[in-house]
Amino acid sequence: MRDLSRGGLEHLSLNWATVREKWDLGQTIDGCARQGLRGIAPWREPVQALGVEEAGRRIRDAGLRVSGYCRAGLFPAADAAGLRAAIDETRRAVDEAAALGAECLVILGGGMPPGSKDLALARGQARDGIAAVLPHARAAGVPLAIEPLHPMYAADRCCVTTLKQANDLCDELDPDGEGSLGVAIDVYHVFWDPELEQEVKRAGAARIFAFHVCDWLVPTRDLLLDRGMMGDGVIDIPRIRGLVEDAGYDGLIEVEIFSRLDWWRRDPDEVIRVIAQRYRSVV
Amino acid sequence: MRDLSRGGLEHLSLNWATVREKWDLGQTIDGCARQGLRGIAPWREPVQALGVEEAGRRIRDAGLRVSGYCRAGLFPAADAAGLRAAIDETRRAVDEAAALGAECLVILGGGMPPGSKDLALARGQARDGIAAVLPHARAAGVPLAIEPLHPMYAADRCCVTTLKQANDLCDELDPDGEGSLGVAIDVYHVFWDPELEQEVKRAGAARIFAFHVCDWLVPTRDLLLDRGMMGDGVIDIPRIRGLVEDAGYDGLIEVEIFSRLDWWRRDPDEVIRVIAQRYRSVV
Repeated sequence: MRDLSRGGLEHLSLNWATVREKWDLGQTIDGCARQGLRGIAPWREPVQALGVEEAGRRIRDAGLRVSGYCRAGLFPAADAAGLRAAIDETRRAVDEAAALGAECLVILGGGMPPGSKDLALARGQARDGIAAVLPHARAAGVPLAIEPLHPMYAADRCCVTTLKQANDLCDELDPDGEGSLGVAIDVYHVFWDPELEQEVKRAGAARIFAFHVCDWLVPTRDLLLDRGMMGDGVIDIPRIRGLVEDAGYDGLIEVEIFSRLDWWRRDPDEVIRVIAQRYRSVV
Repeated sequence: MRDLSRGGLEHLSLNWATVREKWDLGQTIDGCARQGLRGIAPWREPVQALGVEEAGRRIRDAGLRVSGYCRAGLFPAADAAGLRAAIDETRRAVDEAAALGAECLVILGGGMPPGSKDLALARGQARDGIAAVLPHARAAGVPLAIEPLHPMYAADRCCVTTLKQANDLCDELDPDGEGSLGVAIDVYHVFWDPELEQEVKRAGAARIFAFHVCDWLVPTRDLLLDRGMMGDGVIDIPRIRGLVEDAGYDGLIEVEIFSRLDWWRRDPDEVIRVIAQRYRSVV
């Protein structure tokens, strides 16, 4: 397990959503570079606003790696045309991720389409969508990272609710483990899982493409936008980082905090300073 | 699978918490009887307020079954004395459940004690607590129903987050399956689970002691108190009831809705009328 307490911030990456209410992508690139971070995880909207080529150029000029590109997938749809549209959109996201030099494209399973109560159907569509995009991703050299989300998002955001499900999809769709399909592990989404240890081991270095941190607050006041700063909640982050690094992961540690009530209201430079301090002490 | 659309409400039970803001236990007993329900699930606080013997007498006089007694367990504690206190408290709840003639006592695993980030420790304490209470429950003839709660309650309410975990506890602590240890299955807590079907089958008739319904709203505005009326959300309730009844469950269907923003504000007689209508049409 890496010692983060000393030295620089060489494994730290900032997900743009953490500062989204105050900074556009350009400001976020500059802020990360200014404070010594080594990575950034941009979202599609601000990348498209800046222009993909320009965004890639500025990120490279700042010396930042792209720990992940957020986000695509979200396949389940009410009809075949909807599913095709989601597949096409995800292929475009692959192209953007390639232009940015992203280390992976984050894939969310998606929730049930409006009116549906059929989670099994949604899960089947997520599988079919990933299978349809995978050849294009391989050709573009962009690894797809399936991110299981917390089960509280099963209905409307992500039918892939456990790391086991994500690993099962990898086994099924990429049986040879060529490095084109893997998982993104976010402590917020998986810390509750009784099978976390075995499933992290099962994923292993070959399939863990990203590692995200934040914290689970007690109480949590909003299902989506009340994530905590590392150290302010109840997740044993070092334990989970230990599992992930013992499995062989040596990539960036990405901080992704949706916090309408707290961190989104603060000066992003202050937010990054706190992140850096917590990175050294509680991650 | 039973046909609920015709005939009376012979399989319907009301959890007191559904009307808790307007009715005490006496009013709830009267209301259930008045509207033709066959069961009630009281909580400890209103039972103690009325007196256990008096509560039992009035429930029996009203011709109601007690589908479950809520609730005990909540074992994890900061020290051994705290765990012992939770065990003692749960033994008292067993005695109350026996006096009420309850068909089971609902057991929650409990969350992590304040300051702890050790879910594995909490899970071990939940296991030890159930093991410690089980002989007393057997002697009293009160089945213990372990209720897995949704993973969004893992930190502060219930470290038992999946039906698989509950089944594993049953296998470990009651290997002979004498009917003294089983599970309570609430659609709200388990609908997201990719392993639901296999784990319901695994529990089987011998271990499914209770079946609870409500619905998952999109959006859900509060982690605890925004459950929906059956039919207003996205849970495929008939599918899950089918799994449970195909496994052999033929007990009461208990409605438990925490709804600070909606149903708790309404006249309980109206709430029960809507429940009865939904019971016949969407459950």
